[in-house]
Amino acid sequence: MSISGLREVVGQTATVRGWVTHIRSSGKVAFVVARDGSGVLQCVIAKNAVSAECWETFARLTVEASISVTGEIRADVRAPGGVEMGVSDLRLIGESPLDYPIQPKEHGIDFLLDHRHLWLRSRKQVAIARIRHEIEQAIHDFFYERGFVRVDTPILTAAIGERSGLFATEYFDEGNAYLAQTGQLYGEAAAAALGKIYTFGPTFRAEKSKTRRHLTEFWMIEPEVAWNDSEANMVLQEEFVSYIVRRALDRAANELVELERDTGALERVKPPFPRINYTDAVKTLQAKGSTIQWGDDMGAEDETLLVADYDLPIFVFNYPKEAKAFYMKENPDDPRTVLCNDCLGPEGYGEIIGGSQREDDYDRLLSRIKEEGLPLDAYGWYLDLRKYGTFTHAGFGLGLERTVAWICGLPHLRETIAFPRMMNRLRP
Amino acid sequence: MSISGLREVVGQTATVRGWVTHIRSSGKVAFVVARDGSGVLQCVIAKNAVSAECWETFARLTVEASISVTGEIRADVRAPGGVEMGVSDLRLIGESPLDYPIQPKEHGIDFLLDHRHLWLRSRKQVAIARIRHEIEQAIHDFFYERGFVRVDTPILTAAIGERSGLFATEYFDEGNAYLAQTGQLYGEAAAAALGKIYTFGPTFRAEKSKTRRHLTEFWMIEPEVAWNDSEANMVLQEEFVSYIVRRALDRAANELVELERDTGALERVKPPFPRINYTDAVKTLQAKGSTIQWGDDMGAEDETLLVADYDLPIFVFNYPKEAKAFYMKENPDDPRTVLCNDCLGPEGYGEIIGGSQREDDYDRLLSRIKEEGLPLDAYGWYLDLRKYGTFTHAGFGLGLERTVAWICGLPHLRETIAFPRMMNRLRP
Repeated sequence: MSISGLREVVGQTATVRGWVTHIRSSGKVAFVVARDGSGVLQCVIAKNAVSAECWETFARLTVEASISVTGEIRADVRAPGGVEMGVSDLRLIGESPLDYPIQPKEHGIDFLLDHRHLWLRSRKQVAIARIRHEIEQAIHDFFYERGFVRVDTPILTAAIGERSGLFATEYFDEGNAYLAQTGQLYGEAAAAALGKIYTFGPTFRAEKSKTRRHLTEFWMIEPEVAWNDSEANMVLQEEFVSYIVRRALDRAANELVELERDTGALERVKPPFPRINYTDAVKTLQAKGSTIQWGDDMGAEDETLLVADYDLPIFVFNYPKEAKAFYMKENPDDPRTVLCNDCLGPEGYGEIIGGSQREDDYDRLLSRIKEEGLPLDAYGWYLDLRKYGTFTHAGFGLGLERTVAWICGLPHLRETIAFPRMMNRLRP
Repeated sequence: MSISGLREVVGQTATVRGWVTHIRSSGKVAFVVARDGSGVLQCVIAKNAVSAECWETFARLTVEASISVTGEIRADVRAPGGVEMGVSDLRLIGESPLDYPIQPKEHGIDFLLDHRHLWLRSRKQVAIARIRHEIEQAIHDFFYERGFVRVDTPILTAAIGERSGLFATEYFDEGNAYLAQTGQLYGEAAAAALGKIYTFGPTFRAEKSKTRRHLTEFWMIEPEVAWNDSEANMVLQEEFVSYIVRRALDRAANELVELERDTGALERVKPPFPRINYTDAVKTLQAKGSTIQWGDDMGAEDETLLVADYDLPIFVFNYPKEAKAFYMKENPDDPRTVLCNDCLGPEGYGEIIGGSQREDDYDRLLSRIKEEGLPLDAYGWYLDLRKYGTFTHAGFGLGLERTVAWICGLPHLRETIAFPRMMNRLRP
């Protein structure tokens, strides 16, 4: 049975299969710590309580050997999981040579990433994986409970103009296909069919960027809601982010402890989030010594400077048109700007969400496509959404790895996903 | 508010925003049927009960125009959703020109796929999308309830040998990256870390195949379970498939009615599923006139012939080694075969799952990799899983689109996903 379930069988005999993480012996009593993915268990072997064969098996154990261990489950408040096992039988299933690459010492990050398939077994990595999982399920539950329909938008897409950072692949007689950087445009079409939708899938950026906040392959969640305006869009975002954080606190508490995460910072995350107009943000940043000028997009340094005043995620809204994508709706109160927002995580985690109300006016959208020099024929179907029953709508994209990094308190995205893909990292 | 929620406000006044699907008028009374993605609503406009402006607005409505309509919600057992609206106000939000491409007549499939962004709005397509969504959430819930950890395996992968049907893309200085055909090998590494895992993501096959059962981009769910053998693997599969089907029956009943699905065939889907040894299956097929010989993989025609005797999904297990992948565990009772199974849907839907116990013996796996001529250096990390604490494990891959097609009763996969990708289909 699984280690996580042993609490329920205190006083009974159970068999657990897993991998050895620690071994020590004091001559007559031996200790084996085993993990099975669900938890960690200390197994106590008294020499006089087991067969000679069993005691000899102990002597052959090494770190990461796989074992089957049987014994009585005893409550022990000091133990992780609250129980330990008094061993009656121990079997070695799969040996693990002494050259197991990951040793209890400092390894360089490249070494660890080269051995990612084994590094995943370490306690910290298991905790991160379980938190990511909890966040992912929370995301699905949030939308499911609210009547959103999940829509899987395509990864392989036709030419959408000479945008930079695209991975290309030959697609039969159709020319090149490009790996999607977003599912949003498809999500908008689906919102006209289904009302409230969200996507949940991998997206790709072929950018020669080596920062701690970029992966070439990362997962995005992109809701799109018919009849939502920019303000309703921000309300949805703050409810969404708060829900995810609450869920991690409630159901991944042990894992957050394992990561030594300051959960106080997460406990504060509740709606409403502070809202700062872009124009005000620029003034604040300038007063703090930034060189940002009105019209510039905000860089990572500016974001860090700005969030330093807050202990919640914040919204910066209504950026200048030139700094943002063509599909964002012009702000009727200040046509130099668009109805959009970024959501910046606290503690310096930077942008975790970008969202906007979409341009729903056919003629304005057509002008923007032409201004950007995008190929009209590739956007004909997208314009159709404004031609046939146009509708106010808004949506956003949440970067999953950035969200996991923030909730886990990790400085770099590379540990937030099982097999990270970076500019110089395609294996294992 | 959403049409699906109107049942709760009978007798009250509500405002709904959506799109016009039908219009008719008898001079003094007009009817507008509107959809909003959550449901369909009949709105009744009595000329003498509304303003002249409102009545004139009705005259300007066309199919797929977007509207806002306000009125009293009345119970009406004949109406879809059980309610209709007595209109007090009607506003036209977005016009829809009379050239709306999808008309109430037969369109060719290429025309419909060219207009997929609009075709998605039709009742049948909305029903399919909602059933797919329900199935997806059921999949997540099934694994979540059972303590599996979701793991997102990479789409961009390094050379894994000259396998056919791979999409390739240039990856910085690393040479080509290939789009994943499966996440399984990564899932095995994760199972050694987390015990029970599953993947849920897009996979890719660059095959020049135009059958109704193939897409170039399709979604797969791949659980991998430490300590499961082939028999436990089949038990998990039948529980999983039955859970999904039950969930669709329970929570997407209206959508199945919309598709005129014979739900009796789905009601029967409960464990256990019949299990047929490959060798017996070949004899049965030969007796039915098939030309299959022992050693051949089973084609779609053979599958159809075989399932005709059953009204449940069936397992065909322990195929010949040559017909299956290198990583499957040799069957100790018949080394010509491997410990694997396919799960074939009833009603001629063919393979929806392929699964196997994995080869956990280092030397045997090494031999198989060499026999297949696969590049050893690319599989070093995969062999490590057998070197350091090897473990019995098994898993399977469920094809999402095939499962949706079967549950919806669709003959072709192309309608099971929002924007299908086929050999000659990369747009919209």
